[in-house]
Amino acid sequence: MATAKGSGAIAVIRLSGEEAIQITDVLFKARSGKALKETASHTAVFGDFYDGDEVLDEVLITLFKAPKSYTGETSVEISCHGSLYIQNRILELLIGGGARMAEAGEFTKRAFLNGKLDLSQAEGVADLIASESRAMQQISIQHLKGGISDELKQIRKKILDFSALIELELDFSEEDVEFADRDAFKGLLKEVSTLLHSMIHSFSYGNAIKNGFNVAIVGAPNVGKSTLLNRLLKENRAIISDIAGTTRDAIEDTMVIDGVCFRFIDTAGIRQTSDEIESIGIQITYETIKKSHFVLLLIDTTDVLENSQEQHWHQIISDIKKDLTPEQELLLIFNKIDCLDEAGLLKVQQAFSDENACLFISAKENKGISELEQHLILSTQKDNYDNQTVISNLRHLEALKESEKAVARIEEAIRLSVPTDLLAMDIKDAVYHLGCITGEISNDEVLGHIFKNFCIGK
Amino acid sequence: MATAKGSGAIAVIRLSGEEAIQITDVLFKARSGKALKETASHTAVFGDFYDGDEVLDEVLITLFKAPKSYTGETSVEISCHGSLYIQNRILELLIGGGARMAEAGEFTKRAFLNGKLDLSQAEGVADLIASESRAMQQISIQHLKGGISDELKQIRKKILDFSALIELELDFSEEDVEFADRDAFKGLLKEVSTLLHSMIHSFSYGNAIKNGFNVAIVGAPNVGKSTLLNRLLKENRAIISDIAGTTRDAIEDTMVIDGVCFRFIDTAGIRQTSDEIESIGIQITYETIKKSHFVLLLIDTTDVLENSQEQHWHQIISDIKKDLTPEQELLLIFNKIDCLDEAGLLKVQQAFSDENACLFISAKENKGISELEQHLILSTQKDNYDNQTVISNLRHLEALKESEKAVARIEEAIRLSVPTDLLAMDIKDAVYHLGCITGEISNDEVLGHIFKNFCIGK
Repeated sequence: MATAKGSGAIAVIRLSGEEAIQITDVLFKARSGKALKETASHTAVFGDFYDGDEVLDEVLITLFKAPKSYTGETSVEISCHGSLYIQNRILELLIGGGARMAEAGEFTKRAFLNGKLDLSQAEGVADLIASESRAMQQISIQHLKGGISDELKQIRKKILDFSALIELELDFSEEDVEFADRDAFKGLLKEVSTLLHSMIHSFSYGNAIKNGFNVAIVGAPNVGKSTLLNRLLKENRAIISDIAGTTRDAIEDTMVIDGVCFRFIDTAGIRQTSDEIESIGIQITYETIKKSHFVLLLIDTTDVLENSQEQHWHQIISDIKKDLTPEQELLLIFNKIDCLDEAGLLKVQQAFSDENACLFISAKENKGISELEQHLILSTQKDNYDNQTVISNLRHLEALKESEKAVARIEEAIRLSVPTDLLAMDIKDAVYHLGCITGEISNDEVLGHIFKNFCIGK
Repeated sequence: MATAKGSGAIAVIRLSGEEAIQITDVLFKARSGKALKETASHTAVFGDFYDGDEVLDEVLITLFKAPKSYTGETSVEISCHGSLYIQNRILELLIGGGARMAEAGEFTKRAFLNGKLDLSQAEGVADLIASESRAMQQISIQHLKGGISDELKQIRKKILDFSALIELELDFSEEDVEFADRDAFKGLLKEVSTLLHSMIHSFSYGNAIKNGFNVAIVGAPNVGKSTLLNRLLKENRAIISDIAGTTRDAIEDTMVIDGVCFRFIDTAGIRQTSDEIESIGIQITYETIKKSHFVLLLIDTTDVLENSQEQHWHQIISDIKKDLTPEQELLLIFNKIDCLDEAGLLKVQQAFSDENACLFISAKENKGISELEQHLILSTQKDNYDNQTVISNLRHLEALKESEKAVARIEEAIRLSVPTDLLAMDIKDAVYHLGCITGEISNDEVLGHIFKNFCIGK
């Protein structure tokens, strides 16, 4: 079953493999009377699908003859009417005829095994199907198009060429010659480690694009957090409501703004009633803040200057900042500006003029919300990844890190002029890990792990 | 969007109309470089779908050139990856290019307007998509294949031929001739009314196949109704759990047994604690029983003969039977036979030997359940509809009844030798109502009503 589960106007069932046409031919009678096996590839044929002597459905069948198909094998696509009874019955009849249900990702796995896609392209397919935002779709299609593979294959090829020369040196080791130019290789290694470093660095961005940028909303109970959340949500609901599995509970919600996915987490942690305000609040929200890309500290503009609270807030701000990494950003959001006159607002602005990221909003009156959204969007783009390969896959990250380590070892080995046979081992190591990403090196366990996360039918 | 809503491996988007290829060609670039408009009909083409300068997705496009398509118009089917973002974006881009979203049933409506399907065939498509059981699928495919239309069109044609002769008589009315042979027409009318009668009669069966045979489960609280329901359910859960919208609450549940859909309704109405047992119980469950095809009266075999309850039960049985129509069936289900020895069981059998439909079961030990299922299945087949057109659509029923009335009026008119011009009016009436079913007669209001119940994308 290639299409989504459920009742639609039509559903598409796919078969792949040598016998695909043969199995279908037994159950299908084209309106033209022509057997499928006599029909040209890439042709759509209309006719009746039979359940015994009776017509089960009128279907449209599209043929793809090997090797010109997604899997590289002969394939058949059956478009039937979307009734669940009919879908299930067709599957039963095909299975009765010798087919079997595909495992998750099996079509793409076969495409990989038949050389139609490399491994990172195959993973791009899964990411593309799962992509819920423009940004994620762009990264995925880049992977599917071979963006990451091309670069890695090139550098791996260069290292392999060098490796061949090193092997040659080993064969002639008693003669003590250097076929492989160490200086040229050093230049290559420099290039490789720069590329690996930038790919590794891109992961935190790619991962956020894939899973959403975490935004912690921190503040006292009545400061207007849920109003802000609803305000953000309402503006974007049309996009969100279509996405299955979106968290809809009060404390966490995902939304796509300008094609980028954000995951807003309401912490409800800081209480202004206690004099231990800083420690308690920070403690509770600490974990959330730690995993967030953005921390929105929501402050009630109307009473922030009363009863010497100003000092408290400066303390909280400095406490939060202390634990932030350079990749994280704290935003001070002063809410309820509608309840303050201009003079009052000016006072607050002056009191917090040292802070470089202050935004003044009224969640209630929908003021400053789009500025907040714009600020978030711009911040996600502060590292310019436009023309660069972005990785978003943990497996790639790990293999890249291993490759980087191996390259560092090679550099060190050359610097120390270690014996050629030891150098050769480090080079093999680097070549191995680079090959793992594209699947030039692979094993059943790795493949099984990758494809089990695919949906059935792809 | 032709496929079910949600995230699957692939999704199919359909365009129909003169500009379908033109609109798609702007956004799509085939791997072969060939424009779609230069591609042959019924061909599948692989390539890139663009969002501006960037590739949005790799898609497979199948072309259908007019008139050889479902709608009879030039059509394009786009198989894209199943991400909701991609699906929605492709729709947006197509709409930006001049397409618009299809209304519910619009593809089938166009097929009807272009003469690819008649109206009852179009309704067969909707029924086929909605069919949740083998029996419903069989009725729907029969309608889609033109089963009902063919018969009706034939008799309508014969009446029309006769009508032409009658019109001729009217043109020559002053000459007092009879071109139309009244006796031959009487024979035809007899044939027509027999057909109409059997079609009308088939509705109660067809409707039950479509919506499920209602089975009321009546009995005292602890007699084992929910055990029975669960027992029936567990055996069939695999089929049911796939069907969206299946009622899952305690008192009503639908299940498909041997390809036929049953709707079990737990009434929990009869209380044995009160001496007004019959009246109260019957009152509460009366409405449920009235709308049921089967009434399962569940009786506790272990105490049915104690304290002169036997008499009570005979009274209940006779009360229920009194209100049943000939189409309804009462089944006495004696539960808990595992708690009784053979002698006890024999006594119960003798006490109710007058009743012709007694079943002895143990819901707890799963005894007699499949016999119960078999009994229900056989009962649904007691009228043999195997080689007969079955209607399941209320609109058809109403048009058939109107046709039947008109035919009766014609027969009466001939019998009374009423003036030819009055006879002609009755004939026109019959021809009109018969034409409504197949859509030879139709108006916008009727069409709007029919197609609004279709799903989007068909």
